Amino acid sequence: MMLLQDRYELARSVAREAGLRALEMFRRRDELVIESKGLQDMVSAADQDTEAFIRQQVLARFAADGFLGEEGGLDRGDADFLWVIDPIDGTACFVNGMHAWCLSIGVLCQGRPVIGVVYDPNSDEMFHAAQGQGAFANAKRLQVHSAARVSEGVLGVGFSHRVPVDAFVPFLGRVLADGGMFIRNGSGALMLAYVAAGRLIGYYEPHINAWDCLAAIVLLQEAGGVVNDFLADGGLQHGNPIIAAGPALYPQLLALIAPESCSPPLQSNKLPALF
Amino acid sequence: MMLLQDRYELARSVAREAGLRALEMFRRRDELVIESKGLQDMVSAADQDTEAFIRQQVLARFAADGFLGEEGGLDRGDADFLWVIDPIDGTACFVNGMHAWCLSIGVLCQGRPVIGVVYDPNSDEMFHAAQGQGAFANAKRLQVHSAARVSEGVLGVGFSHRVPVDAFVPFLGRVLADGGMFIRNGSGALMLAYVAAGRLIGYYEPHINAWDCLAAIVLLQEAGGVVNDFLADGGLQHGNPIIAAGPALYPQLLALIAPESCSPPLQSNKLPALF
Repeated sequence: MMLLQDRYELARSVAREAGLRALEMFRRRDELVIESKGLQDMVSAADQDTEAFIRQQVLARFAADGFLGEEGGLDRGDADFLWVIDPIDGTACFVNGMHAWCLSIGVLCQGRPVIGVVYDPNSDEMFHAAQGQGAFANAKRLQVHSAARVSEGVLGVGFSHRVPVDAFVPFLGRVLADGGMFIRNGSGALMLAYVAAGRLIGYYEPHINAWDCLAAIVLLQEAGGVVNDFLADGGLQHGNPIIAAGPALYPQLLALIAPESCSPPLQSNKLPALF
Repeated sequence: MMLLQDRYELARSVAREAGLRALEMFRRRDELVIESKGLQDMVSAADQDTEAFIRQQVLARFAADGFLGEEGGLDRGDADFLWVIDPIDGTACFVNGMHAWCLSIGVLCQGRPVIGVVYDPNSDEMFHAAQGQGAFANAKRLQVHSAARVSEGVLGVGFSHRVPVDAFVPFLGRVLADGGMFIRNGSGALMLAYVAAGRLIGYYEPHINAWDCLAAIVLLQEAGGVVNDFLADGGLQHGNPIIAAGPALYPQLLALIAPESCSPPLQSNKLPALF
């Protein structure tokens, strides 16, 4: 229990410290782009710097812990505690000067997600949860939305070119045809945290990587949400779809993703076991 | 000229003052929801209060000016100067505790858009422009993005249930199929300001109201952008599609909206004269 609690505190303090470093880089974006000779190089440098800083801080305290990061890949994957890190989630926003980016730090204990921290430096909002202790935004306890239909609130959606367009666009059409509305702010981790906070009623993305969503999965579980079995079938290594909502909305969201006349692009998209 | 300059200064100062009032309401959202007996009533009250405050401040200085507001409708529409106001653009974000909302204040002089102010209180970013004077975010001069293809950056999109789903979803499919990426952050005015700032490469929404986009149209014109003739065919009263981009991207964006084999939903959607 102390092992969990110490890591929960460390995850929050390192997320804040790393987040403020990243925010400083975000604000100095124009200079840094010139120094690093391009937008893409600038954001890669910011990503790598932030992830290295988080690893260093964690290793100084817990030298035997493992890591899975967007930048650094898998390191000591068989450790009891595995830190799953996205140093800057929403790099397209970061690089273009938009505010919807965040840091995501999840911790697995022997394969189970037990700590989740999503930090938004622009709004100074720390979304955090540890198994059995509830989910919070700063000090405020979180609870998922009570909506039972997509027409009762705003849905978050994500899409990447790792999946075919048809794995996403027909779904979005069904959501809108049902009277729903969506946002895609550019950061999957932040939108998933918003689902835990009841700001969004749910979230769907046909393929997401573990570092983008593992922290938020703990937030969602502790805020009364329902999430698909993301870790099934090698999700940690290869990613999976993510489907998250309050318990009242989850069945309709599933039906909108995979209607009875399931279309081939969805079938081929390796949906997790619960389908 | 002085008439324009005085109003330009007033538009910025009143946007900031009204924005900080709205931000205070946003932060006290939970209390206000209880006081006003519901989310929808809370946001309506915040909208009305903010618009009334802006009108009052403008009238104290320019008693003969006219107004078109989301809340108050048209008042003295034949005045030389018409203030076009959206007190809170992005009310779904505001009401649900998300940060992508802003104030939009545009001024028409004898029917021509001459002043545009979009203020984001959460980030304290004032996007502002007056005819012939350039466009700025706070003190920084703005320039639209140089992208020539949708695959070279992030596109902003908007959708409302005022138009059929088919006026939007096939377009989005074509953007993604061409390697593009999109955001919809919930505030059309803010996304249009981001196009002026070069953060987004363009924006399309099949139907938008004048108070959501008139300020941004001035920003776009002064930042070197291209915008469709929004005011054609009664756009001020009834809204129109909005299409905005840098000059290099605009032709491809048009082609993605209305491809040669133009589909019936788009044809029926009253596209502006330039088509």
